[in-house]
Amino acid sequence: MSAPDPSALGARAEAMIAELGAISAEPGRLVRLFLTPEHRRAADLVAGWMRAAGLSVSEDALGTVRGRFGSAKPRLLIGSHIDTVIDAGKYDGPLGLVAGILAAEHFARARAELPFGLDVLAFGDEEGSRFPATLTSSSACAGAFESEALATADAGGVTLADALQAYGKNPKEIPGAAYRPEDAAGYVEVHIEQGPVLEARGEPLGIVTGIVGQVRLRVTVTGEAGHAGTVPMNLRRDAYAGAAEMALALEKIAREHPDDGMVGTVGRIEAIPGAVNIIPGRVLFTVDLRSLTDALRIEATGRFTAEASRIAKARGLMVSIESFHEIATAHCAPAMQDALAASVTELGHKPIRLPSGAGHDAQVMARLCPSAMLFVRCRGGISHNPAENTSPRDMGLAVAALIRFVEKFQPS
Amino acid sequence: MSAPDPSALGARAEAMIAELGAISAEPGRLVRLFLTPEHRRAADLVAGWMRAAGLSVSEDALGTVRGRFGSAKPRLLIGSHIDTVIDAGKYDGPLGLVAGILAAEHFARARAELPFGLDVLAFGDEEGSRFPATLTSSSACAGAFESEALATADAGGVTLADALQAYGKNPKEIPGAAYRPEDAAGYVEVHIEQGPVLEARGEPLGIVTGIVGQVRLRVTVTGEAGHAGTVPMNLRRDAYAGAAEMALALEKIAREHPDDGMVGTVGRIEAIPGAVNIIPGRVLFTVDLRSLTDALRIEATGRFTAEASRIAKARGLMVSIESFHEIATAHCAPAMQDALAASVTELGHKPIRLPSGAGHDAQVMARLCPSAMLFVRCRGGISHNPAENTSPRDMGLAVAALIRFVEKFQPS
Repeated sequence: MSAPDPSALGARAEAMIAELGAISAEPGRLVRLFLTPEHRRAADLVAGWMRAAGLSVSEDALGTVRGRFGSAKPRLLIGSHIDTVIDAGKYDGPLGLVAGILAAEHFARARAELPFGLDVLAFGDEEGSRFPATLTSSSACAGAFESEALATADAGGVTLADALQAYGKNPKEIPGAAYRPEDAAGYVEVHIEQGPVLEARGEPLGIVTGIVGQVRLRVTVTGEAGHAGTVPMNLRRDAYAGAAEMALALEKIAREHPDDGMVGTVGRIEAIPGAVNIIPGRVLFTVDLRSLTDALRIEATGRFTAEASRIAKARGLMVSIESFHEIATAHCAPAMQDALAASVTELGHKPIRLPSGAGHDAQVMARLCPSAMLFVRCRGGISHNPAENTSPRDMGLAVAALIRFVEKFQPS
Repeated sequence: MSAPDPSALGARAEAMIAELGAISAEPGRLVRLFLTPEHRRAADLVAGWMRAAGLSVSEDALGTVRGRFGSAKPRLLIGSHIDTVIDAGKYDGPLGLVAGILAAEHFARARAELPFGLDVLAFGDEEGSRFPATLTSSSACAGAFESEALATADAGGVTLADALQAYGKNPKEIPGAAYRPEDAAGYVEVHIEQGPVLEARGEPLGIVTGIVGQVRLRVTVTGEAGHAGTVPMNLRRDAYAGAAEMALALEKIAREHPDDGMVGTVGRIEAIPGAVNIIPGRVLFTVDLRSLTDALRIEATGRFTAEASRIAKARGLMVSIESFHEIATAHCAPAMQDALAASVTELGHKPIRLPSGAGHDAQVMARLCPSAMLFVRCRGGISHNPAENTSPRDMGLAVAALIRFVEKFQPS
């Protein structure tokens, strides 16, 4: 096999991503939701690319397009998603799929004899933009699909079951989409970082150590509303002053474990009644706390809860904290991380190890088989936004690293 | 003259306030706005009470009902308002008017020969609940009416000028509603405290030292929105974390001058975009800062601005602060404060001196003549709320104190 040329690969990736990015439900902005006509068009485009790359193509019961190279078992799975958020950027998802197709093409063109087969997977539902459920496509492949999701409906009242049937799929066949664990040697996913770390470090590629677990809390602080002019400071039970102190306590706690990827965010806040001249009697805010080590996150959540209670008590307030979303960390397989890192090093770059703060199909696939992710630097860390951007050069390096990784992959 | 009996006066005040409180635009909640049919009915009820008390009644160009006792000049003015906020309590406003009528009745029944005349004034627009302007009725009496207010409109597009005409008034006659300064010997107003200080001190009556000036600020903090999972803590420019720190800085500054009635409040806060998993890129919040001493408030505003800038700089944020409302303190006349205090002491109670954190007609009347206010304890400090409450006993003491004050009043 000839050595892959990163710049040629980058140019091809850019062109393919642009073509896919033109398939949208709306003119002027990118919207490509699960099981829509746009999904169909994107899947057909992807299938055509796969065939041209020398892969044999099929579709599973969730509409995931599968491009196969070789018939050997076990299979090395290379996947990503082709659905988008509303008003999306074009790299989030498609880059990983295009990287998989270009890598598979490299081996297919060379008629390579690998000790395993390659499956390139184009998942249709990672973002969860249409139905309440998320990651359903990779869940089906991982044998982790939860059938309750079938009854959930989109904003128009169409259930996932009905949408699948309208797409020509039979929900009864979903269990058949699952890989047998012994057939899945590993899963690897290339994805833009969606964060600023690689750019800040001046490196194009990163090795994901794990997809951080998270907890989301709904915090309600109750004090006493009052006239902003007539209640002296020492007689106030100002719910917002307490909430502000709690937000800073969260920030302090989250800052203590930067190496573990711990982050804490207050994203929503509402003061009630919300008038310029009324002391807030009640404040609602959300907390999003993530970290790679589950035990550290659980400990941090406990400390935040204790701090919030202490602050409330000192201020004569009441606080109630309710967890409404919790997911454990999905660790990336150390041997696969090391193999990806070695490939990046061979290309003359420093492999930055970093956690993924966002969710990805890899977190579900990790339940099926050893999984890993290669992150690609993106401009300004911006994602879920039309301004999302990554350079052809960095994408080409990512495909080249993926090819090197596949070349040396050994099913365990 | 017989000595007034506080408990009989309190019972009468309670009955009159209940009758006035039954006049509302809506069943089930109290809404009585300026120049509405409810205003007309309330004004007619008040005029009837005044006549029964032995006063001669007129109405000025703003609809203020005036009950006169004696023809001597100068006049001692006793006033309050009969308009309400939406979903109001029944004591805010009416108590002061009823106290004035009961006090004037005391002297009228006794055919007292006072070295001044008494005018009881029932203002129709203190709350500013209908038109953007506020305190227009007392402004007309004080010769401080601003004619631009006539062009402002209510939520239905009706201008103040049109509403006055529909009420049978001629806006051209507003200047004639003004007292000549030499004819106004003083203004006194009884009002529920609308705050918790008297209740906390265990005393029924308070002497207002002044109506605090205030500044209202609109603060905009700009950082950078980002994914709550992918942006490490040290690379964040979290607008909300900065805003929370600024709110606590405001609280700290406002706590430094309790004796000056300084209070600082963040009543409205909005984090944008406002999603649980997005770092806020922009936060808007309001500041309401009040204090009795103008210089202290101006200094505190400057310190808050400096602190906010320091916090923003340390966090890589931008902050802009805009003042959208500013009013200077109206000091109560020391001699009138002392006379009210002496009356309270004679009734066996301790006259608590306290600033008024809320606005009142007295702050406008203070521009015309020496002015003072007597505060009455209210339950839980609650006001602008149907739960507003004050006891007949405390109201009776207030009327008795007002009568003693009038007895000893000496025009300067």
